[in-house]
Amino acid sequence: MNTKKVILDVDTGVDDALGILLAVKSGRMDILGITTVNGNVSLEQATLNTRKILQLLNVTDSIPVVPGAAKPLMRSSYFEHRVHGQDGLGGALRDMPVAVKPAEGHAVDFIIDRVSRAPGEVTLVMTGPLTNLAIAVVKYPELVQQVKEVIFMGGVAGNFGNVTPVAEYNMYVDPEAAKIVLHAGFPLLTMVGLDVTRQALLADEHIRELGDTPIGRYVAESTQDYMKRYSERNGVRACALHDPLAVGVALSKELVTTRHYYVDVETRSDLCDGQTVCDFQSRLGQKPNVQVCMEVDAGAFLRLFVDTLRV
Amino acid sequence: MNTKKVILDVDTGVDDALGILLAVKSGRMDILGITTVNGNVSLEQATLNTRKILQLLNVTDSIPVVPGAAKPLMRSSYFEHRVHGQDGLGGALRDMPVAVKPAEGHAVDFIIDRVSRAPGEVTLVMTGPLTNLAIAVVKYPELVQQVKEVIFMGGVAGNFGNVTPVAEYNMYVDPEAAKIVLHAGFPLLTMVGLDVTRQALLADEHIRELGDTPIGRYVAESTQDYMKRYSERNGVRACALHDPLAVGVALSKELVTTRHYYVDVETRSDLCDGQTVCDFQSRLGQKPNVQVCMEVDAGAFLRLFVDTLRV
Amino acid sequence: MNTKKVILDVDTGVDDALGILLAVKSGRMDILGITTVNGNVSLEQATLNTRKILQLLNVTDSIPVVPGAAKPLMRSSYFEHRVHGQDGLGGALRDMPVAVKPAEGHAVDFIIDRVSRAPGEVTLVMTGPLTNLAIAVVKYPELVQQVKEVIFMGGVAGNFGNVTPVAEYNMYVDPEAAKIVLHAGFPLLTMVGLDVTRQALLADEHIRELGDTPIGRYVAESTQDYMKRYSERNGVRACALHDPLAVGVALSKELVTTRHYYVDVETRSDLCDGQTVCDFQSRLGQKPNVQVCMEVDAGAFLRLFVDTLRV
Amino acid sequence: MNTKKVILDVDTGVDDALGILLAVKSGRMDILGITTVNGNVSLEQATLNTRKILQLLNVTDSIPVVPGAAKPLMRSSYFEHRVHGQDGLGGALRDMPVAVKPAEGHAVDFIIDRVSRAPGEVTLVMTGPLTNLAIAVVKYPELVQQVKEVIFMGGVAGNFGNVTPVAEYNMYVDPEAAKIVLHAGFPLLTMVGLDVTRQALLADEHIRELGDTPIGRYVAESTQDYMKRYSERNGVRACALHDPLAVGVALSKELVTTRHYYVDVETRSDLCDGQTVCDFQSRLGQKPNVQVCMEVDAGAFLRLFVDTLRV
Repeated sequence: MNTKKVILDVDTGVDDALGILLAVKSGRMDILGITTVNGNVSLEQATLNTRKILQLLNVTDSIPVVPGAAKPLMRSSYFEHRVHGQDGLGGALRDMPVAVKPAEGHAVDFIIDRVSRAPGEVTLVMTGPLTNLAIAVVKYPELVQQVKEVIFMGGVAGNFGNVTPVAEYNMYVDPEAAKIVLHAGFPLLTMVGLDVTRQALLADEHIRELGDTPIGRYVAESTQDYMKRYSERNGVRACALHDPLAVGVALSKELVTTRHYYVDVETRSDLCDGQTVCDFQSRLGQKPNVQVCMEVDAGAFLRLFVDTLRV
Repeated sequence: MNTKKVILDVDTGVDDALGILLAVKSGRMDILGITTVNGNVSLEQATLNTRKILQLLNVTDSIPVVPGAAKPLMRSSYFEHRVHGQDGLGGALRDMPVAVKPAEGHAVDFIIDRVSRAPGEVTLVMTGPLTNLAIAVVKYPELVQQVKEVIFMGGVAGNFGNVTPVAEYNMYVDPEAAKIVLHAGFPLLTMVGLDVTRQALLADEHIRELGDTPIGRYVAESTQDYMKRYSERNGVRACALHDPLAVGVALSKELVTTRHYYVDVETRSDLCDGQTVCDFQSRLGQKPNVQVCMEVDAGAFLRLFVDTLRV
Repeated sequence: MNTKKVILDVDTGVDDALGILLAVKSGRMDILGITTVNGNVSLEQATLNTRKILQLLNVTDSIPVVPGAAKPLMRSSYFEHRVHGQDGLGGALRDMPVAVKPAEGHAVDFIIDRVSRAPGEVTLVMTGPLTNLAIAVVKYPELVQQVKEVIFMGGVAGNFGNVTPVAEYNMYVDPEAAKIVLHAGFPLLTMVGLDVTRQALLADEHIRELGDTPIGRYVAESTQDYMKRYSERNGVRACALHDPLAVGVALSKELVTTRHYYVDVETRSDLCDGQTVCDFQSRLGQKPNVQVCMEVDAGAFLRLFVDTLRV
Repeated sequence: MNTKKVILDVDTGVDDALGILLAVKSGRMDILGITTVNGNVSLEQATLNTRKILQLLNVTDSIPVVPGAAKPLMRSSYFEHRVHGQDGLGGALRDMPVAVKPAEGHAVDFIIDRVSRAPGEVTLVMTGPLTNLAIAVVKYPELVQQVKEVIFMGGVAGNFGNVTPVAEYNMYVDPEAAKIVLHAGFPLLTMVGLDVTRQALLADEHIRELGDTPIGRYVAESTQDYMKRYSERNGVRACALHDPLAVGVALSKELVTTRHYYVDVETRSDLCDGQTVCDFQSRLGQKPNVQVCMEVDAGAFLRLFVDTLRV
């Protein structure tokens, strides 16, 4: 089977976990490792949650979990316990004993090492703040040309934010890291922003389709509060599959339409920090640096998600 | 007839001029005066253009034209000759001798005087940068409670800008003035932003309807380059009636649907200066300060515009 | 006698009041009027305090007191009650009935009117935030060439601030106004900053010299808390004559040595807002815009102050 | 003899080189390695220059030279060829063949490794932009408690800058890195800023004292243009020993008097970026984070410098 080499970089909250499930269950990714980062929850919690998910998937040996940055580059942590629960998994797997150990080493070095060993082959799928990748790029600039593609969940191009009126969470938490990554010069940098992830809505019917399996039960339990919160804000019981969609895009570019734009991120304004400014009309005279996902075939993605997880 | 007391504040370029035509020809506004401001063109040119338009309308005596600020509060001028032509009227009325003299006094004092003489009765329709109103508010804070309503063309709430990716022209030129006005505490402050004005498109067919009259010929001539430029950018021959729509909203609120939001404007960022940040989801915990026009009945407005001008 | 036409612009706290005393008692100034501004205390209080001081001086008719801006251009008020007491005069003249009425009109117009009536003759001595002058300049740009000189107490060039580590009070309160004034292009703009005013220290001995007169008693009473606070911070009983030194410089340039530098003020940084950046080494490639007071003959100034007030 | 474990982090220009000479020749430092960073010159050039200096000192084996960051975290490089010459050593050692190879590995990991192997024992002496240390801290937060002391040449507390009116070079080049280091929580962080380094002036007489030795000749040659430039700006033939003083402070704290202050650095302002704001008067309510060098016994330091180099 044709698989692609992938490193997932995650701050494992509810939707990161669903992204990991999708990636592993797809069977179409050669997951070199999962690196973790401070974000929705603390680095330690993100690492623990990731290990639990791998255990749930019975892949305790093959995929190293490598901890990375414990804090944004220049700012304080900004956890999202209201969304992901105190533990980041909405209370699911609370009592699971965890046998998987975190790997030795640091996420930054893991990324650099695995990419430089297989230049042009590794895709990075980033579903947390971009701190690890930013450090990797500053430490080892050659990385930029050696990565096959970076796909990140984050930002928003023509829509409103989910932390401030203009900023999406992953960008807001570490805008300096985002700025480093955006301007690093990656030949292929794909932004899976709220413009498309907000359309990828998991509903109760999908969860029912997953059936009464360990994974089906986990998904149902972990998304319960998340859906409740979504429902309170939007009037519909659903759960936006932000991070899984980034994994989905890594599995199949056909799910989205993209356009090539210049994107910058604000780092110097109290009002707009973390905003991804997308130059739709080429007003800034800068070369495009990002493949921005503009539309998503949400039905196809949900199909992929459900079909993959219920296998 | 039921008229409303209005002061127009303009930086008379092509579309400001159309706004003045609409206001005067409507017969439903008691136009106390027209104040001018640096913006699309210099203060002097804006004043001259305004006088020419009044002369075209044969209302040379009844409406004083009062010059105001010659420069944004803290920034350099930023003319839009590419859009409005060197003279601001797209070359139309070039050789018209102008008999109308500018009035004595200063726009700031004119606004303060007329509003304070008729508290609760005067509507300000602002179609240029908000410099004059900002100074008026700082100089005479009572103004805020004495104005009936402020309607300004400017900003953009859920769309992209027309100068930078995020900033609309009037906000971009004097964001500090905009910030003063937004936070002044006006009981009724209506924003007619690009979200709606971009839908109010004047096409050749409308111009033909105006007929072979002095006004019809003027409109045709002044909008020619404007339409060409629009066509080059957007592939359609048309001309966005930004400023006239603000006048239209002053004539008839039914043309638009509005919602009450907190709106702030960026003044401290090279990337986002002049951006109007609209807190659609109440994330900032601030009280709404602006009635934001969300939708426009463009057909009804164009009907109003054409019917009014061809009388 | 040779007098110079002067307008004082004040936010009358303790040291502004001493500046007014010095100006009036000197007999060498033709004080066209005193304009007031929000700053150490509210506009209303500053106006009241100014009227009281004029009454103490028995000049109730000849010098109009004209209220100006009630708020900084873009920021909230920032009163200094800890320094100047709740009423701004350290509790002195508390029960004085005030016969002097504020003049009609607005400080901004008063400044514009008096200056434009006598171009090249009027010196503006500014001892509060620069809000009034900033508005005047924006409203009437010709002012810049018509003023003889602007002398302002404010900023600090090679020393630390008195509100933040880097910002002096008058600049900190309205940095946008300061920026407008600094960049307006005044031919002669003299900055009397903390570098020199901190050396102009009024001590108990000076107050004793003033004798048991109404003015002597007023000075003693109004400065009591001010000296106490100074003593707590600096270990010496004294009172820095910030604002009076600006008046002193207007009376006699020989009191200070000045140098011509480019000075800008920070308005876009939480850390440094209000800092006056003085380009001592011509690193910014900008033309000098300010005569910066570098040194003061403090002995001579104190002599002048005491001798003038005890007459 | 009592030596201290030290890592030098350098962007080897003229004065960094003199710092290395002082460190090695002192015989009182156990130099674990020298890490290099982009700054005065490119990373590659800084590494080459460092290797040349070690060769001049005949210590080609014992001290590893480890390259680090090739760029500031978020900004472009800003070389100082006008000060340090095109090659960074003022043209000296131009044709020296270099046998010393750079070490394997990365400066960031080298610092982390050596410090964590000997917790509480290693002093970091930083004489370039703080990029390497910033990355190390983000990557490995425990470093902060394991380092014995960080001594950095950089910033200015009560004086003017040497790039902009307010910013010193090392801070200006990578203010974000400086901010990370300042706020990292190092128990002992000593700032050797321009306030003291400007007083450590090497003159021709000192160079003559070094005698006609390889080192003497090197110092004379490498500082020639540097002194010329200094002389043109300041009217005195001399050469400020910025970086060597940081080494001097590492050798002997008695050379300076220090005080404990809260220091922050500006990163969000075009005007003040890179400024170290030192809260001399405790106005910001923050805990002191830096030992700021306030005064230096320049005579004693020059004595130390000359005596050490001529051995």
